Amino acid sequence: MNIKQLEHIGIAVKSLDEAIPYWENVLGLKCYNVEEVADQKVKTAFFKVGEIKIELLESTSEDGTIAKFIEKKGQGVHHLAFAVDNVENALAEAESKGVQLIDKAPRLGAEGLSIAFLHPKSTLGVLTELCENKNK
Amino acid sequence: MNIKQLEHIGIAVKSLDEAIPYWENVLGLKCYNVEEVADQKVKTAFFKVGEIKIELLESTSEDGTIAKFIEKKGQGVHHLAFAVDNVENALAEAESKGVQLIDKAPRLGAEGLSIAFLHPKSTLGVLTELCENKNK
Repeated sequence: MNIKQLEHIGIAVKSLDEAIPYWENVLGLKCYNVEEVADQKVKTAFFKVGEIKIELLESTSEDGTIAKFIEKKGQGVHHLAFAVDNVENALAEAESKGVQLIDKAPRLGAEGLSIAFLHPKSTLGVLTELCENKNK
Repeated sequence: MNIKQLEHIGIAVKSLDEAIPYWENVLGLKCYNVEEVADQKVKTAFFKVGEIKIELLESTSEDGTIAKFIEKKGQGVHHLAFAVDNVENALAEAESKGVQLIDKAPRLGAEGLSIAFLHPKSTLGVLTELCENKNK
């Protein structure tokens, strides 16, 4: 797999209204975008740290994956997203090497990226997103 | 706080012997250093993804913090480390803004960095390391 860079870190929070002020006032980073991704039942807030994005995720539904994650593990890092050259090829390679896929084919994520998730059961506990910007 | 960049992501694993081949063979990244930090009861393996380091952490003791973390939450992302200009100043600022400190003063971490941790209770669940390379 040809990973180009860490694209973003997804962090599960109970409330963006609580989390954005912490990231801005304590850590000194600036929120540059808030976006709802209805498909994933989340509202997201983006920050930049150098070249990396931090994506805070608040569930918009009690049965959303972020709500369930927080119920089970508490607030905290939810996933790591790596930018790859070609997300379809990366998925095929991962599957051929025994990795369980959550998404067999890419779907549309925040900021218009094509995204797909690998199951944390076969990535040693790290929910892993592969993403590609097909609009470039 | 003046965060310059994400320095590394710490990931708790049960076994480096299992985890290094996954990161190398599936994700295609190269382990460039393995180091034991006796003080923290961990053995670490480092990878680079663009400008960011991934630090895999295996506990060298059953009562180490990484062993306890895995027992409670399973393998996965353990902490985020941000590079700051001055770690003492950053700690003082965080404390003045109500953040609970794990380390009141910096100590020596892997790769010779001066490091200090903020408590996840006051960082919305993200165990946060601040670090500075004083050897530069």
